[in-house]
Amino acid sequence: MKMFQFLFLFALLFSYSQALDFCVGDLKSAETPSGYPCKAAANVTVDDFVFSGLGVAGNTTNIISAAVTPAFVDQFPGLNGLGISMARLDLAPGGVIPIHTHPSANEVLLVLQGSICAGFVSSSANKVYLKTLKKGDIMIFPQGLLHFQINAKGSPAVATVSFSNPEPGLQILDFALFANDLPSELIEKSTFLDDAQVKKLKGVLGGTG
Amino acid sequence: MKMFQFLFLFALLFSYSQALDFCVGDLKSAETPSGYPCKAAANVTVDDFVFSGLGVAGNTTNIISAAVTPAFVDQFPGLNGLGISMARLDLAPGGVIPIHTHPSANEVLLVLQGSICAGFVSSSANKVYLKTLKKGDIMIFPQGLLHFQINAKGSPAVATVSFSNPEPGLQILDFALFANDLPSELIEKSTFLDDAQVKKLKGVLGGTG
Amino acid sequence: MKMFQFLFLFALLFSYSQALDFCVGDLKSAETPSGYPCKAAANVTVDDFVFSGLGVAGNTTNIISAAVTPAFVDQFPGLNGLGISMARLDLAPGGVIPIHTHPSANEVLLVLQGSICAGFVSSSANKVYLKTLKKGDIMIFPQGLLHFQINAKGSPAVATVSFSNPEPGLQILDFALFANDLPSELIEKSTFLDDAQVKKLKGVLGGTG
Amino acid sequence: MKMFQFLFLFALLFSYSQALDFCVGDLKSAETPSGYPCKAAANVTVDDFVFSGLGVAGNTTNIISAAVTPAFVDQFPGLNGLGISMARLDLAPGGVIPIHTHPSANEVLLVLQGSICAGFVSSSANKVYLKTLKKGDIMIFPQGLLHFQINAKGSPAVATVSFSNPEPGLQILDFALFANDLPSELIEKSTFLDDAQVKKLKGVLGGTG
Amino acid sequence: MKMFQFLFLFALLFSYSQALDFCVGDLKSAETPSGYPCKAAANVTVDDFVFSGLGVAGNTTNIISAAVTPAFVDQFPGLNGLGISMARLDLAPGGVIPIHTHPSANEVLLVLQGSICAGFVSSSANKVYLKTLKKGDIMIFPQGLLHFQINAKGSPAVATVSFSNPEPGLQILDFALFANDLPSELIEKSTFLDDAQVKKLKGVLGGTG
Amino acid sequence: MKMFQFLFLFALLFSYSQALDFCVGDLKSAETPSGYPCKAAANVTVDDFVFSGLGVAGNTTNIISAAVTPAFVDQFPGLNGLGISMARLDLAPGGVIPIHTHPSANEVLLVLQGSICAGFVSSSANKVYLKTLKKGDIMIFPQGLLHFQINAKGSPAVATVSFSNPEPGLQILDFALFANDLPSELIEKSTFLDDAQVKKLKGVLGGTG
Repeated sequence: MKMFQFLFLFALLFSYSQALDFCVGDLKSAETPSGYPCKAAANVTVDDFVFSGLGVAGNTTNIISAAVTPAFVDQFPGLNGLGISMARLDLAPGGVIPIHTHPSANEVLLVLQGSICAGFVSSSANKVYLKTLKKGDIMIFPQGLLHFQINAKGSPAVATVSFSNPEPGLQILDFALFANDLPSELIEKSTFLDDAQVKKLKGVLGGTG
Repeated sequence: MKMFQFLFLFALLFSYSQALDFCVGDLKSAETPSGYPCKAAANVTVDDFVFSGLGVAGNTTNIISAAVTPAFVDQFPGLNGLGISMARLDLAPGGVIPIHTHPSANEVLLVLQGSICAGFVSSSANKVYLKTLKKGDIMIFPQGLLHFQINAKGSPAVATVSFSNPEPGLQILDFALFANDLPSELIEKSTFLDDAQVKKLKGVLGGTG
Repeated sequence: MKMFQFLFLFALLFSYSQALDFCVGDLKSAETPSGYPCKAAANVTVDDFVFSGLGVAGNTTNIISAAVTPAFVDQFPGLNGLGISMARLDLAPGGVIPIHTHPSANEVLLVLQGSICAGFVSSSANKVYLKTLKKGDIMIFPQGLLHFQINAKGSPAVATVSFSNPEPGLQILDFALFANDLPSELIEKSTFLDDAQVKKLKGVLGGTG
Repeated sequence: MKMFQFLFLFALLFSYSQALDFCVGDLKSAETPSGYPCKAAANVTVDDFVFSGLGVAGNTTNIISAAVTPAFVDQFPGLNGLGISMARLDLAPGGVIPIHTHPSANEVLLVLQGSICAGFVSSSANKVYLKTLKKGDIMIFPQGLLHFQINAKGSPAVATVSFSNPEPGLQILDFALFANDLPSELIEKSTFLDDAQVKKLKGVLGGTG
Repeated sequence: MKMFQFLFLFALLFSYSQALDFCVGDLKSAETPSGYPCKAAANVTVDDFVFSGLGVAGNTTNIISAAVTPAFVDQFPGLNGLGISMARLDLAPGGVIPIHTHPSANEVLLVLQGSICAGFVSSSANKVYLKTLKKGDIMIFPQGLLHFQINAKGSPAVATVSFSNPEPGLQILDFALFANDLPSELIEKSTFLDDAQVKKLKGVLGGTG
Repeated sequence: MKMFQFLFLFALLFSYSQALDFCVGDLKSAETPSGYPCKAAANVTVDDFVFSGLGVAGNTTNIISAAVTPAFVDQFPGLNGLGISMARLDLAPGGVIPIHTHPSANEVLLVLQGSICAGFVSSSANKVYLKTLKKGDIMIFPQGLLHFQINAKGSPAVATVSFSNPEPGLQILDFALFANDLPSELIEKSTFLDDAQVKKLKGVLGGTG
């Protein structure tokens, strides 16, 4: 009898406790400034909170000898609205993650294997913060600042990065400058790079203009 | 001559660009709701952004056969104000991170070695989200919800966790209930646990009252 | 004539002043991380901003001799996006609000009638903050920390609680542990509770596994 | 022996769990945009989280037959950084809380005794939201909008208000216009009030200019 | 061949870099507390980021000899979610922007032409901050505080204002009090204005009641 | 007599209304993640809210034929904590603001005189958003994205920019790459620029390494 009352109470208490514990993103709906609308809670399973993609090495057989495997909200909708995301970096010997920024997130990198030379440049005084990291080291790259990672050793390196945003953004300098139709003249005026240099990299990266 | 002008301009431009790129915490000053006051930028070096503590395995020779090694703002002041932090989990065979919450952060766990059985309970409908994770898997634990990690296998497991807050907080259920002077009578009334159970665990965990 | 101009100006000024003064939640639409989409302003009336449910005593004829009546966004959609919500607590003599957390909100309790013994446990050092409150007292319960309220007197007690979030969440410890299908073995490993204790409470609370 | 290990682990775990569960304000230090610096945790007691000032009726023997008793961060430093605060309103028969705004907080009012006629004006279309509230009703007043409360009945009324900010601010229209040295000419130009009206109220409220 | 690999890598990298750089508002969809849903990125052009409306002088042939031209999210959807908006003020000789508040934004005014006498009243101590601004001066008006701008000179004045919110809101005191159906009796009780004054301004501004 | 009571009430009401209307930065104290500690309210005057520096044309007699005059928190401490700041751009004929990012702010540019060719590159698909702006046009540059402004006409151009942060930050690409001691080899590896190009610009900009 008492149990009946107890259970009845539970029903009452639970009727209202539909809290926004999480908001698994419904990627088919239009995004808002705070993220995607939530998938209906009734359809959420544990698999919405688990992602296996970072367990697979990226293909580094390319010109930069490196690969980035993201676990951002578009790959892992469970991160929607949670203020966090991750990615995996694979760097073959000599591999490099070209200089880039994340417009919307701070980053912490963790070296899992090998050694990585990493650096960022602050905006305060153009100061360079440069360090060769060994396995187990973590390093901070503040939001919006140019940074890069290089594997200067002869053996492969692997790292994971964590971001303070489910959509950190990624602007790779070379792509932003040379892999689109931004007119060479404007690039040259706004970067002081030589015309030949600009046209060479536009050629490599498929840019026009 | 032109270069002189150029450099002069640089000086002018840089005189004001003292942006808050980062705010390495001065742990000796009183904290504020947004974090610690910033260490003077002139004294900041790359070592303020690098932390090596997660590279060392924790000592799992203890009753839970597990260890937690944090990289929160108090260990790694470079994280101050950045909305992110990390920790390392070592679980010997049979090791367990007892059920706990992080009052102020979402968490993403990454299995680096071995296999981990992890779960959390939502508040919406008491629903359990449970999964056995293998190396490379990541799993989300939303802010403030009870969760645990267990190494059910015969070999050691290692994981890193990333948080959406430089000070995620950590409230371990057993410690909160049994490792202090909270009167047994109040524990029993508010948890429905038996008196003998409460007193047994108070004994193990050094609680009084 | 001037008045005409004046009124004309008003029309102009008002045409653009469609500010987001409020965003009454449209509960039929999918929620986002920032809350529900807004009901069309043209359909909003004063009744969207008034809620009478807290004026009615909850039914305390149950095993905990207590009742919680919420005014969260799901009951009172006018709160959507406003960073605040409320609830009413009724505690018959001996009544107890079992130990619980709010994953997403700070709480302030106000005693309206009777006397309430309330406490929370901090995560910093497991410290217990315990106080017997009299009518008119208010007490803070910080976000995500375990807390409880007990009516230790022989007369009924009534309180209201205010939250810093329209969806504070509510995770009641006993329900999270014992009122679902979380396997007993995992509970025991992650809480150190005895098997008999776990199974007894699972029985009372309708849990399985 | 095992217990020794257990306790040793506890010490380790607790050494780093110095989370920012709360930040009781140190009112003697300079405030920051996020609030006051925190009082040292070691000095915090349960009394930092309890405030008794709202239990005492305000003195309504004044020209507005009303009184406001605040529990903002300056009265109750435990609220610092928590995104919430409260106040008590006492309205004798005919009492009125003059039209005012809270620049930094949404408000929810709860009628504890008597009846209160309350209203606010939206900015979207100057629309008036007006309601006579009875005991137990709650009503929302969105941030920054002009609102008022009047006791139109013959018996006293009491209410509490909850805010979404520990420092909600309070700008009472009459005081802002007439209780300072804002030149009458500027008031008249910017409000279209008549000179006689402005000077009359400046007289009553002690304004100059 | 290498270029092929390079381009292939680009495709890979770009497949996931669908960051939320911006969120041009889709004004036809229901707003959320964080703003409007985003227009599909594929349909966004540079014209979504450019607005020409502030280049046209407002019509000041009206009773206040002034005009406000907004560039809020409803006029300029590119601002959606970006935490910023603007407006243009035109003040003919003697023109006045009547006393008003912005419930949801701080404001910075820049004088482009002429001279403007501007002021705001703080809530802390009713203190008046008053200044005659010349061309090139900027002045801050904090969120939610009553403020006004007057052109006291014989030549036209022009200014732009920037806000810390894409929807700053605008509550003009006279409109809020006199241009709607708020009963005169309630206005008089909550403002201490005389009945004749209230009815006169209600008449001018088209109010009823 | 009544007036005495009224004034007495005022005193009471004002004793607690010490709201955080604003927080003028005390630049001599250490900053926090939320900004500088506040200057004591008693010492704040209207001049803390007014800044005249944008009224003066910058000196464009330099190699970029352009000048930037900031009104960030370090020049204008009244902006502290308010989520907004400004700057003035002067561009002589042919002048250019080199490609740069603001790590912590969205930007809106307003052309006050002349014509400006402006552009930014999104991270989503490297897409270029390019427009020639005329007087009165405003244009958005989202946070953290590379952008530039060029005066392609034969007459001077002037613009103001507004930011969504009192400390927007400013990272000029050429300075970040070439005006410090970042080793040429690392630049070349992470940008694919030729060695000669890197060394040429390091020479011009005073870089070493």
